[in-house]
Amino acid sequence: MQDLFATYRRTIEQALEKFLRKKQRELAYVNLWGSDVCTRMRSFALSGKMIRGCLTILGYEMFGKKTSHEIIKAASAMEILQSSLLIHDDIMDRDTLRRGMDTIFTQYEKLGKQQNVPDSRHFGESMGICAGDIGFFFAFELLSDTPAILSLVVKELTKVGVAQMQDVSIGHERTEPSETALLNLYRYKTARYTFSLPLMVGATLAGQPKKIIKTLETVGEDLGIIFQLVDDTLDVEGDLREGKKTLLQFYGEKRTTKKISDLSKHTEHLIAELPIDKQFTRILLELLEYNQKRSK
Amino acid sequence: MQDLFATYRRTIEQALEKFLRKKQRELAYVNLWGSDVCTRMRSFALSGKMIRGCLTILGYEMFGKKTSHEIIKAASAMEILQSSLLIHDDIMDRDTLRRGMDTIFTQYEKLGKQQNVPDSRHFGESMGICAGDIGFFFAFELLSDTPAILSLVVKELTKVGVAQMQDVSIGHERTEPSETALLNLYRYKTARYTFSLPLMVGATLAGQPKKIIKTLETVGEDLGIIFQLVDDTLDVEGDLREGKKTLLQFYGEKRTTKKISDLSKHTEHLIAELPIDKQFTRILLELLEYNQKRSK
Repeated sequence: MQDLFATYRRTIEQALEKFLRKKQRELAYVNLWGSDVCTRMRSFALSGKMIRGCLTILGYEMFGKKTSHEIIKAASAMEILQSSLLIHDDIMDRDTLRRGMDTIFTQYEKLGKQQNVPDSRHFGESMGICAGDIGFFFAFELLSDTPAILSLVVKELTKVGVAQMQDVSIGHERTEPSETALLNLYRYKTARYTFSLPLMVGATLAGQPKKIIKTLETVGEDLGIIFQLVDDTLDVEGDLREGKKTLLQFYGEKRTTKKISDLSKHTEHLIAELPIDKQFTRILLELLEYNQKRSK
Repeated sequence: MQDLFATYRRTIEQALEKFLRKKQRELAYVNLWGSDVCTRMRSFALSGKMIRGCLTILGYEMFGKKTSHEIIKAASAMEILQSSLLIHDDIMDRDTLRRGMDTIFTQYEKLGKQQNVPDSRHFGESMGICAGDIGFFFAFELLSDTPAILSLVVKELTKVGVAQMQDVSIGHERTEPSETALLNLYRYKTARYTFSLPLMVGATLAGQPKKIIKTLETVGEDLGIIFQLVDDTLDVEGDLREGKKTLLQFYGEKRTTKKISDLSKHTEHLIAELPIDKQFTRILLELLEYNQKRSK
């Protein structure tokens, strides 16, 4: 898995580099910020782990397709979308570090300070809102030739947005969130968007029928929920310190381990059903194992 | 013009109402915010003047086409995009009132206060960022069946985003902006997006050739720059009070009047060249006159 994903990553890096340099040239004549935002976006997008972009290509190649211009564009779009969502999330969470560098709004906040802008925090946040918006437009430009993919992606992103609203508000609610509320947060904010969507995008571009797409949707949800449940068990103290509401707190440790094990069996079963070559079955199982066994 | 635009407006209102109610049903099962954000978005989007939506339909019908499902979807998308841009702009400008109601982030800020959220301002702004993002995704869903339009729209929106960054920063810059910088701000933040883009979207859906689209692009830029120059002359005191940098301050009153007159002649000439029915020529000229003669 690691080797294959490293190859995919290099392909996506090259495509992102090329696309964002093209946009930089196109936007430089609007004003200086056109060039500025593309430079920051390039450095930010290229520093991600690119799990979503890699899964997009995986979802295509596992059905016997060879990497094409179209799938690379889709994978690049997935990565730019992720960067944009993070740029906005970091404003909401007031996170100052991301991907080993200052978050985008923090970069602009520092620029504001240098230039003696009266409210440099608000200046940074405003520029960050714009940068995230511009990233969304870039990503949809990359998807404009593939209407079916665009439609799939925007519908899922709407749910990510609504789940993010829940995430913003959940810490402040008077009543404890229900199991369903927490599960939906895990499902729509991260699981489906990180695992289901990329696999579905790849398989859709590979011309797979609805039944297969549906299976990948479930495999992705399972993988994503396992990922987050394991994450909960890795940072119990941190979550308690930050007042983060997790499913672990709801289930307790024993039931969480049981949930992870049940979901894993379910996923293994679904993966075995997919009409794909053995090497790709192995890669999906490796991904499952990675999500189960990862440590801090 | 007023009567025709009132008819267009009713058509767009109905379409927006229907689309946003459908999204509300679809998103209600993700969590309570799904329904909440659609209700607020509906009330906000339906309260706009809908100039962009109306111009989209005008750009289609003036080439002999009858209002279709496709053009109504495009017009609705233009209105949702405008609402999303305003939702984000209002956070940046800290505007609390818009379209006769609290701005979206202010609505959420008040909700946060009611629920004793520790930093209700930041809560409001965070929810507002999400609401704007969700609006963008709604609009692109409406455009997903028309790739040529989607591509035209996202490329222009990228420029709007970059111009908005300039607008955020221009008040704080140490040096005075140049004429080119101000003209580009007028052109890309408002003129092209408000007037050129809707007309171009309509004409593209009506199957018009590149030459015509190009003419409409210029007509739109002229109309938009005239609109803003007249605006400058209407609120000299307000602009000075707020420290807003305008082209009027750059040109002085006499040269501004001359610019408006030159641009108007240029636009009239271009409008006369368009292969459209007399009634539509008259409507475009009325629009030009409205932009020239409007008072506060």
